[in-house]
Amino acid sequence: MCHAFTMVTGYCCAHATMYIDVDSLPLPEIAGSLPGQMTIGPIHASVFPLSMAMFSIHPLQSISATEIKRARNALLANHDKEVISFREIFIQEPRKGDLSAFLDAEHRGELPFTTPKRLAKCQYDVIGTDKVPYYHEATVDIESGKVLEHEVIGKEHQAALTLDEFDILVEVCKESKSFQDALKEFTLPDGFEVVVEPWPYGGLDLTDENRRFFQGLIFAQDTRNGNPDSNFYAFPLPLIPIMDFHKREIIRIERLATGGRGDGIETKTQNEAKILDHCANAEYVPELLPNGTRKDLKTLNVVQPDGPSFKVTDNSLVEWQKWRFRVSFNPREGAVIHDVHYDGRSVLYRLSISEMTVPYADARAPFNRKQAFDFGDGGAGNCANNLSLGCDCLGVIKYFDAWTINSKGDISPQSNVICLHEQDNGIGWKHTNWRTGRAVVTRSRELVVQFIITLANYEYIFAYKFDQSGGIDIETRATGIVSSVNIDPGKTSDYGNVVGPGVLAQNHQHIFAFRIDPAIDGHRNTVIQEESHMVPLNAATNPRGDYYEVRKSPIKLSGWADAAPQYNRVFKMVNTSRKNRISGNPVGYKLTPPATQLLLADPGCIQYKRASFAQHHLWVTKYKDDELYAGGRFTLQSTKEVGGVADAVARGDNVEDEDVVLWSVFGLTHNPRVEDWPVMPVEIHSVHLRPADFFEANPSIDVPSNKNLSSQEVYQEGSKCCKPAKL
Amino acid sequence: MCHAFTMVTGYCCAHATMYIDVDSLPLPEIAGSLPGQMTIGPIHASVFPLSMAMFSIHPLQSISATEIKRARNALLANHDKEVISFREIFIQEPRKGDLSAFLDAEHRGELPFTTPKRLAKCQYDVIGTDKVPYYHEATVDIESGKVLEHEVIGKEHQAALTLDEFDILVEVCKESKSFQDALKEFTLPDGFEVVVEPWPYGGLDLTDENRRFFQGLIFAQDTRNGNPDSNFYAFPLPLIPIMDFHKREIIRIERLATGGRGDGIETKTQNEAKILDHCANAEYVPELLPNGTRKDLKTLNVVQPDGPSFKVTDNSLVEWQKWRFRVSFNPREGAVIHDVHYDGRSVLYRLSISEMTVPYADARAPFNRKQAFDFGDGGAGNCANNLSLGCDCLGVIKYFDAWTINSKGDISPQSNVICLHEQDNGIGWKHTNWRTGRAVVTRSRELVVQFIITLANYEYIFAYKFDQSGGIDIETRATGIVSSVNIDPGKTSDYGNVVGPGVLAQNHQHIFAFRIDPAIDGHRNTVIQEESHMVPLNAATNPRGDYYEVRKSPIKLSGWADAAPQYNRVFKMVNTSRKNRISGNPVGYKLTPPATQLLLADPGCIQYKRASFAQHHLWVTKYKDDELYAGGRFTLQSTKEVGGVADAVARGDNVEDEDVVLWSVFGLTHNPRVEDWPVMPVEIHSVHLRPADFFEANPSIDVPSNKNLSSQEVYQEGSKCCKPAKL
Repeated sequence: MCHAFTMVTGYCCAHATMYIDVDSLPLPEIAGSLPGQMTIGPIHASVFPLSMAMFSIHPLQSISATEIKRARNALLANHDKEVISFREIFIQEPRKGDLSAFLDAEHRGELPFTTPKRLAKCQYDVIGTDKVPYYHEATVDIESGKVLEHEVIGKEHQAALTLDEFDILVEVCKESKSFQDALKEFTLPDGFEVVVEPWPYGGLDLTDENRRFFQGLIFAQDTRNGNPDSNFYAFPLPLIPIMDFHKREIIRIERLATGGRGDGIETKTQNEAKILDHCANAEYVPELLPNGTRKDLKTLNVVQPDGPSFKVTDNSLVEWQKWRFRVSFNPREGAVIHDVHYDGRSVLYRLSISEMTVPYADARAPFNRKQAFDFGDGGAGNCANNLSLGCDCLGVIKYFDAWTINSKGDISPQSNVICLHEQDNGIGWKHTNWRTGRAVVTRSRELVVQFIITLANYEYIFAYKFDQSGGIDIETRATGIVSSVNIDPGKTSDYGNVVGPGVLAQNHQHIFAFRIDPAIDGHRNTVIQEESHMVPLNAATNPRGDYYEVRKSPIKLSGWADAAPQYNRVFKMVNTSRKNRISGNPVGYKLTPPATQLLLADPGCIQYKRASFAQHHLWVTKYKDDELYAGGRFTLQSTKEVGGVADAVARGDNVEDEDVVLWSVFGLTHNPRVEDWPVMPVEIHSVHLRPADFFEANPSIDVPSNKNLSSQEVYQEGSKCCKPAKL
Repeated sequence: MCHAFTMVTGYCCAHATMYIDVDSLPLPEIAGSLPGQMTIGPIHASVFPLSMAMFSIHPLQSISATEIKRARNALLANHDKEVISFREIFIQEPRKGDLSAFLDAEHRGELPFTTPKRLAKCQYDVIGTDKVPYYHEATVDIESGKVLEHEVIGKEHQAALTLDEFDILVEVCKESKSFQDALKEFTLPDGFEVVVEPWPYGGLDLTDENRRFFQGLIFAQDTRNGNPDSNFYAFPLPLIPIMDFHKREIIRIERLATGGRGDGIETKTQNEAKILDHCANAEYVPELLPNGTRKDLKTLNVVQPDGPSFKVTDNSLVEWQKWRFRVSFNPREGAVIHDVHYDGRSVLYRLSISEMTVPYADARAPFNRKQAFDFGDGGAGNCANNLSLGCDCLGVIKYFDAWTINSKGDISPQSNVICLHEQDNGIGWKHTNWRTGRAVVTRSRELVVQFIITLANYEYIFAYKFDQSGGIDIETRATGIVSSVNIDPGKTSDYGNVVGPGVLAQNHQHIFAFRIDPAIDGHRNTVIQEESHMVPLNAATNPRGDYYEVRKSPIKLSGWADAAPQYNRVFKMVNTSRKNRISGNPVGYKLTPPATQLLLADPGCIQYKRASFAQHHLWVTKYKDDELYAGGRFTLQSTKEVGGVADAVARGDNVEDEDVVLWSVFGLTHNPRVEDWPVMPVEIHSVHLRPADFFEANPSIDVPSNKNLSSQEVYQEGSKCCKPAKL
């Protein structure tokens, strides 16, 4: 919840978690129950008079509060002799066979149609008689309340963390005598208070097997300004306490090196009483900026007088400019795009951000354990910002809400976790006929599905962008505060850059995996690698030397490939059974893999083994139900990637003219600049999907090219405004 | 000039060339003339009472009509016994030594200061007694009217083309009996008329040495709809007439192959009477679209109620959000950026788009001669669109005009050749403190300097974009109509893609060179190549395998380098004499060369030899006055690159701690899609310049984070609008 200060000043607010009385939610009674699949549609409305509110939910809608409540209650009944601590409850998507049959019928307009069951994926701990929690996963049929599947996860895997666990770490640190004793070695300046920043415990040491840990990065906050948002990352303390979560106990406190270049990698910090004396405030909240904010930025508004061009139905179906798709939200992946059609033709079955890893490159222990898997460890949906009007988008915005559950089983709304809006992206296409002076110029309007996650210090802004020419971009913006550690006065480091006084920002990478499940005019697709190659001058094929050869080769077996910009390597997802009537080529979409640096960790080390997905730019697998996570189902404290995309590839499936999935991997090697401090300007990267002989002409050729009559011309020197546009 | 039809319907207009009575322009008298440099400033105002309008022109302002008139008259006087045909008159920028002394004084606020002479670069033909034109270049001192330099260019080089010459080709074709006879072999459908599309004659055959040629691509236009903008590129005829410009005569008519895969590269087309019967209309002007334009796109306006945040003075000085720079315009490079400062500190001396080449890859003669150098051959400024309010930008726009001259010496305004405006680019930076729920989020506002050129069928949109974080992007958008040739019914080709019935769009590349002349806190700069490398696991430096090494190496001698994304290769332009007080690193900006495919033509062929610049991603040279053009001063009909960046590198200059220039080269290999027809959606590429330890913190940290109160929320299902944002 935003503190009172921000409520009055008009600044933005991100979190508004408020658990509600779940028993006040209406729980529809089931009038009848069918074995297997149930049917919905107008003619069945009378059969389920009391439950239509629930049963008319589309299979791709996110879970509702009522559904969470049903699933929770089913679990409680199933474990009535035990103590349950909840982690997540969200929709278990139907198997593709079932869902695509449903979607096909929906697109054909066939009513009534058979709808797959609404299933809840439930993740929870059961507190055993030994007081140790055992992690369970269960699938509950929401309608019947029956537990269809139930799995006790072995101790070799760890459940994703929850924010409740982070709160526990902070609490345990506060009460830990050993941690408080360790802190006494440092004299904090007057008015400074210790802050514990919880982090996943990355890359388990072997001796620590089978236990659940959290680590805390420790900072001090200047409280003299009375502002709870004073930036504590500017005052890092060289300590990392480690908590055994099951014992609720700090079991080890690691002392961090604060040396620089030449100080040796095993040298720990000396006992420095005045560890923060060379640090300095680095504020980012506007009221704490020494010189305030700049005054010469004039207002720029995006105004849509006739409302948005999009339409949203069922809180999930989006229709805009010939696009039609569904949006859902879950705790792990955040926003997911489903069943994407353009002008009635199928393009994608599912599009998601699957995983990312952020390994740090400081050679000194224990920094090798700084390696986050933001989707598998923490959950992008869990960490999603509650967006607010006027803050994260301009123009006319549709927000999507979600629901979450805490460990006690309380249900809470996650408001505004996705924003949907249109934006102008400059000229879309233009041609000027120089003979007549006639210019036809269209704007490129985009539809943006955006969500933003905060992971401790760092932010990622993810956006799926649809354009009028049939293109889809998946964009990431990295921002937030770089991870900082203390460095002695006057020193510099091989492991990062000194970005503020006493603050070392360590070198690191961010490597993302996007999962693209194409359905190019159907599910049987082929991935074709296409390259352009120089051809040596020769009389037979290239007598004048200008020719280059376009080589196409289908990927026949599941595998990986890397970017090769020197050959203009692109990958086309095509349907070989459907030929473009103009070109004769199979209809398709192309993906140009961004040529970015892959994982730099040594292949022998844990950082590398945990993230096989980060070792190649493109993976192609055969679709398998529930195979959604590039880095595997369990990443927290993992020592190697299990069940991730590398394992999927290892099956050696045929992927030619099959139901294929592409996994696009790209990254940024982030060696911080001083300019990244105290909050870094967005670093933007995109993956582009473009139709390639999917259509029979430019699909945006019918975008109107009318003049924008609200534009104005500056008519004098300076910034004197303005002459309006005229017809 | 826009035809009447467009004037009434509110569509956009691009060309409004109207030659004016130059003698009506006031020509200030020179009250006095000083040898060498002259001085300006308030205290000298009384010395030049009649000429201040001219003399207070800043050295970086574009040429005025009065100045063109003075230079033209000086030339006419100098050649009073000869016939002159003008090509271009534009400002010859001062030598860097002179200009930078002036700019330094200007930035120090020192008045009066010494101003370099205003010089006019004049390009013109002198018609010799043998009736053959000889190409001359002269530099005229505008104040005194004296010709300071005069050069008769040898016949081994060709002047850039002018649009007047294109008109002559069309005229000569019309009157050529051989061409009209050749056309008779083809029966055009009723109501079709022949259109000649003039092109530069690329890559001269050796036997054609020392002569000036133009070639025409031939199409037919459907006139039955009565619309002069009906798309004739959909009806290509397999003929290329070649004109000897000096003789005004069609000397050869080349017959083009229309075959497909397997037809052999030397097979010409058979005499096909009905050559267009398998072609079909492919219109793009909205009134000719069979189904009209889409109706469901609602208006999106950019509204700036308080006017723009920028200020423009002298029609050249731009101040915006701590940036301060000058914009000029010339016939060859279009818009050029000069003297770029941020918050009073120098960043760049000059930034320009230097050259581009577009080689086509059809192995069949004479398509190897399709290779345009759009800056050197035709001139980006010459081919610039006259932008119009409401068409090419949204919001509040400042337009810049230029002046041009035709062969007869008439002076003409080029109105609205540059547009300047602000735009929103999404979130600039964000951080959410999850403890307090406080999110601070800023928008990224950009300032865009945009110009658009049309080269026959094709358009390029160029934009210099400045952001609030000290970043500069140089963006290209490729759009327009792909070059089309006729292909027999039912055939496909190794040389391109069939994008419309009977229309083959040939594979080609676009390779751009941007010239970046840095002045990072002064002119003596060094380029440092920086890479990130994996380090094998070893006890001494990488005991846990997570470390990677950042390697930095200065470029000591002029040379080239290629992109290497696998090493995260970036180039930093730094000032080694100025250290960042925070990090200790030299202050600098970084350039990440886009990893794109380089020139594919065989090294033995003319296409390759003409474009040495297109063979590497980055060139580093020592600054030399007038060395502006990556592909050399003369590109039209060239057989090899002369005096381009490769020759500059060959000097082997020391470039460490010197006045260095970077030339950034990137390209797109364009194997057309059906979706690129009839007008292609923009394909966008950018080169990014980013501060790297230039500043002592994020320069945009002081951007206000206030809520945008004009945003609205969709509050119901569908697209029901809207709840306004509240403070």
